[in-house]
Amino acid sequence: MDLFCPGQEISEIRASYAIMKKNPLYTVPVKAVKDMEYPLEDIRYVETAFDRFYDIGATDSGGVTRLGYTKEEDEMHSAFSGLGRELSLEAHSDAAGNTFISNGYNSEDYYLIGSHLDSVVDGGRYDGVAGILVGLLVMRWAKRDGVSVPIRVVAFRCEESSNFGISTLGSAMVTKGNTGMETAAFKGKDGKFLGEIFAERGYDLKPERISGVREYLEVHIEQGRVLEEYKQKIGIVTTIAGPRRFNLYIQGRAEHSGTTPMVMRNDALCAAAELVLEIEKIGMEESVRHSVATVSVVENRPNSLNVIPGEVKLQVDTRGIEIASLDEMELRIKQAGKSICGRRGAGFIKEKISETKPVAMDHKMQDKLARTAHKLGISHRGMMSGAGHDAMQMAEICDAAMLFIPCRDGESHNKKEFAHMESICDGAKVIYKYLQEERD
Amino acid sequence: MDLFCPGQEISEIRASYAIMKKNPLYTVPVKAVKDMEYPLEDIRYVETAFDRFYDIGATDSGGVTRLGYTKEEDEMHSAFSGLGRELSLEAHSDAAGNTFISNGYNSEDYYLIGSHLDSVVDGGRYDGVAGILVGLLVMRWAKRDGVSVPIRVVAFRCEESSNFGISTLGSAMVTKGNTGMETAAFKGKDGKFLGEIFAERGYDLKPERISGVREYLEVHIEQGRVLEEYKQKIGIVTTIAGPRRFNLYIQGRAEHSGTTPMVMRNDALCAAAELVLEIEKIGMEESVRHSVATVSVVENRPNSLNVIPGEVKLQVDTRGIEIASLDEMELRIKQAGKSICGRRGAGFIKEKISETKPVAMDHKMQDKLARTAHKLGISHRGMMSGAGHDAMQMAEICDAAMLFIPCRDGESHNKKEFAHMESICDGAKVIYKYLQEERD
Repeated sequence: MDLFCPGQEISEIRASYAIMKKNPLYTVPVKAVKDMEYPLEDIRYVETAFDRFYDIGATDSGGVTRLGYTKEEDEMHSAFSGLGRELSLEAHSDAAGNTFISNGYNSEDYYLIGSHLDSVVDGGRYDGVAGILVGLLVMRWAKRDGVSVPIRVVAFRCEESSNFGISTLGSAMVTKGNTGMETAAFKGKDGKFLGEIFAERGYDLKPERISGVREYLEVHIEQGRVLEEYKQKIGIVTTIAGPRRFNLYIQGRAEHSGTTPMVMRNDALCAAAELVLEIEKIGMEESVRHSVATVSVVENRPNSLNVIPGEVKLQVDTRGIEIASLDEMELRIKQAGKSICGRRGAGFIKEKISETKPVAMDHKMQDKLARTAHKLGISHRGMMSGAGHDAMQMAEICDAAMLFIPCRDGESHNKKEFAHMESICDGAKVIYKYLQEERD
Repeated sequence: MDLFCPGQEISEIRASYAIMKKNPLYTVPVKAVKDMEYPLEDIRYVETAFDRFYDIGATDSGGVTRLGYTKEEDEMHSAFSGLGRELSLEAHSDAAGNTFISNGYNSEDYYLIGSHLDSVVDGGRYDGVAGILVGLLVMRWAKRDGVSVPIRVVAFRCEESSNFGISTLGSAMVTKGNTGMETAAFKGKDGKFLGEIFAERGYDLKPERISGVREYLEVHIEQGRVLEEYKQKIGIVTTIAGPRRFNLYIQGRAEHSGTTPMVMRNDALCAAAELVLEIEKIGMEESVRHSVATVSVVENRPNSLNVIPGEVKLQVDTRGIEIASLDEMELRIKQAGKSICGRRGAGFIKEKISETKPVAMDHKMQDKLARTAHKLGISHRGMMSGAGHDAMQMAEICDAAMLFIPCRDGESHNKKEFAHMESICDGAKVIYKYLQEERD
């Protein structure tokens, strides 16, 4: 059996461990040793740390549910503090419940490595956690090597929107101070308001802003297939895309599907189908500017076998790293809707659901991270982030950078989510080397 | 106020009645009298009969729910028998619960005029009922004029599929004897099996077949806009289209809508959109053979704003009066699905839900009805029926014909369903004249 080969399931790797534990004379096959780029003790450390989180919020279906500001997330943060203490590092929390471990050096000018420990409903075990493991591994190496670079690792609260409908809550609160949103009135999945939850826990909805951060570094699983497709180990995020989302309403005429001749119809679904394809085309054309456009939600009414669709609602998710491209897509979607529906005698309404600006990562940090990865012989590419991350919030108060590591088949937010321990080590290695060179 | 003008709401007509009742000296405005093609007493008779049914199964939303083989349908049949008795006609039921009224002449060679008295959930007040009112009016005229043509009027049970998922149950049972279906196991909306319901009522699931019918005549609201569009009063049905229905399953790849570049996607909804438009085109091209093709149902999965659609199920309703056209459409839909999904790297499965053969109405009867309408100066056109009707079943055992009357805006199966009393009189007039000439 080969150890740590790409594509191996974690269960297979565990099986190898089990053999090794039972039989100390069992030797790791030659191929595996050759392929293995990290000392077994590092892999083991990451594995052990990963295992501490493994069962928390586990669901019957095989995934995990660790919603922000729930006891499952609390357990994750306790486990994180515990791992910090085992490395003899100080752990503390801020007034929004974010947990930090620190190597005790200069508290007014430190590097912050972070991510989150909450998950979506029935989510995966690597989203967020991978970045925290990277932070722990960097801390471990820094301690081992006696590196005196001031480092903190942060686990931000409630990065996923699954509990309160709003993402990156923990990092938004401590970077913005006042988020400008009525956070107290956010209602969780269990019906409780964030205001109540914060009061019970003694947290503060307008916490003190985080200070002293020199640079923020976040490693995250890609949640896409680009790295896998290009067979590269590290993605250096250039910009975190800003989603712009729309409801599109198409009003046709619901009539009997047997008694209404084809030429007398105002079929809302046919108009919607044209629009879906036009939006795909717009996304394709704007992909030269790294944008995407997706019709992800369809509601067809009355959705009855013998009735011509009379009303269709589409939800569209556009993302881009250039405002000009997002504007162009929005305009073209509106024009397409009006033109298609006009031609078909159907009504059309476009409604914006939300708009978030793209956030650029720091250019100098990107360059340095690329050079570092190059020196280490770790393949890499610059790429945008289609998904939002805590780094978006941190970028408002300090220089921020993000690295992606591959996740198998791009699967995320479900139990199939998987990243190799070696990929986590890759991320940590680049960050560690980067920090060393920064302070050399 | 003008009485009985086309386009008037029944409520307006009622308001006129109310004025007339209170004030016997109130005279009907000249214009109304001039426009009115039927004696006030006929209109009043139909109105009164219609009113007997009006409140039965009325719903809060303004429609009616009179499901087949429920107490609401029973009340409808009681009201029908009552109206028969008021015309001094015999009423009887068969072993499937269908109700007949008869003028007592030759029971072995009679003309049967029929339709149904059940409705869909929250349906309209004219679907089915209009045909029964026609039968009553014909009977009334025959009696008044001393016409000895043997006539029966039948209200078939459970024509709508809304209760048991199967349409024309009452007429199917008494024409086929054994329907070839496991009728006892049909489950109603309230969870009760048809077998239980029949046992409780003393009905027979394999009732004696109806006999002695010389010809069957059914008047029904069009449930479409063709007559209205062409400003014609009567549609003479050539063929009742056979629906052929399909499930189409498209399997793409559900991925993050932000992190998956456009060129790396297998978007199931985009494939579905192409297919929807292709099916529309197929329907358009086959409309020269009077066929229609409709994608009426869409289920998009996971239907989540930040996920590319991974799986789409479409339901398609094709109808036609030529088997060759139905075959052609089925083949082309399959080819289109395979070709579109093949090109897009998506999976495609076509599954037939049901297939019913088109049923031609009797040619001689169509010709005679057209000549009769022409003699009466009632505008008419030959047309197919896209919807199924009891006449489909009756055509298996005797010559059968159907007439359509306009319904406002083609609205049917909801509270907006509306047909003018004059249209009901038009249908009755053609049938009555036809019967008189048949026996002259």
